[in-house]
Amino acid sequence: MSRQSNRTTDSKKMNAELFTLTYGALVTQLCKDYENDEEVNKQLDKIGYNIGVRLIEDFLARSSVGRCQDFRETADVIAKVAFKMYLGITPSVTNWSPAGDEFSLILESNPLVDFVELPDNHTSLVYSNLLCGVLRGALEMVQMAVDVKFSQDTLRGDNVTEIRMKFIKRMEENLPAGDE
Amino acid sequence: MSRQSNRTTDSKKMNAELFTLTYGALVTQLCKDYENDEEVNKQLDKIGYNIGVRLIEDFLARSSVGRCQDFRETADVIAKVAFKMYLGITPSVTNWSPAGDEFSLILESNPLVDFVELPDNHTSLVYSNLLCGVLRGALEMVQMAVDVKFSQDTLRGDNVTEIRMKFIKRMEENLPAGDE
Repeated sequence: MSRQSNRTTDSKKMNAELFTLTYGALVTQLCKDYENDEEVNKQLDKIGYNIGVRLIEDFLARSSVGRCQDFRETADVIAKVAFKMYLGITPSVTNWSPAGDEFSLILESNPLVDFVELPDNHTSLVYSNLLCGVLRGALEMVQMAVDVKFSQDTLRGDNVTEIRMKFIKRMEENLPAGDE
Repeated sequence: MSRQSNRTTDSKKMNAELFTLTYGALVTQLCKDYENDEEVNKQLDKIGYNIGVRLIEDFLARSSVGRCQDFRETADVIAKVAFKMYLGITPSVTNWSPAGDEFSLILESNPLVDFVELPDNHTSLVYSNLLCGVLRGALEMVQMAVDVKFSQDTLRGDNVTEIRMKFIKRMEENLPAGDE
C-alpha cells in the first residue's frame, strides 16, 4: 500500500487490545504462509523494518526530538518517547556494554503478547520480532545502523522481555534507503 | 494463538500509527496469499470476527456497559464507547431505517487508512473490512446477530466512510459460539 501524502497528523489515542489482536492475526497468517519459525521470524523483522522506515517520519514530526548526540541519548529517546508513544509502555534501559555500544530494553510487560500463548509446535517463534525490525528500520532512516534482537521473552518463560540493541555504525547521509 | 487467562487488565494508551501500519502489513500479506479482492475481503471479515469474539470480553470488563435495551442503545455504545476505546474516534450514528433495524456509522476519518492508497489492481478491496467482522463477532457474543458492511469508503473516493449495520435477530443464550 503506498504512502498518502495528505494524511492527518492529529493523534488518535487508543487502547492496545485491538492492535494486540490484529498483530496476533498477522503472526498467525505468517505461520500459515511459511514453513518454519525461523522464516516467520525473518518475515516479521522485514515487515517491521518497512514499518519503521515509515514510522520514523511520524515520530520525528510528533516528538520534536532532535538529532541524538550519542547512543545513550538514542536509547533514552527510544525507551521514554517512542515506546511510550506507540505502545504505551516505557521499558527501562540497562545492561550497557563497557564500550557503550550495546544496551538492553527491559519490558516489564509487552502489549503485543497479551492474550497469547505459544503453541507447542512454535517453540522457535520470536513472536514480537516485528519490534526489532521497526527499531532497525527507523534508526536506519536517521543514519544509524543497529543490530536488534530479543534476548529474553516472557512468552518463552523468561521473567521479563529483553530487547538487545547493538550500535554498528553511523551511515552516510546520502545513502539511498527504502523498502527492503 | 490461544487465550492467556492471566492477562493484565490495565489499559495501555497508544497512538494509532503503529497499529495502522501493522494492519496494512496484514492486508498486504492477505493480498499476497489470496487470488482476488473478494477472497481477501472474506478473510478480513473472518479474522475480524475472531478478534471481535475475543475483544467483547475486554470491552465489557473495561466499559462497565450493561445489556443494551434496544438496537438504538447498541448503536450509541458502539459509536461512543467502543470506537472511542479501540480506535480513538467517535463515528456519528445516522441513517436509521424506519423500522429501526438498520443504521449507519459515519467515520469522518478512519485511522486504518492513514498512509494508504489502494493500488489500481485492488479496486474491489474493502481495505478496512476487518472492522465489519469485529462488530459482527463481538455482537454475536452478546446474542445479537447483525449484518455489517461498508457502504461508503474514502479509499474509493467517497467523502466519508460509512459502515451499515442491520439487526438480524436476537440469538439464544445457550448457543455455542467461538472461532469460525
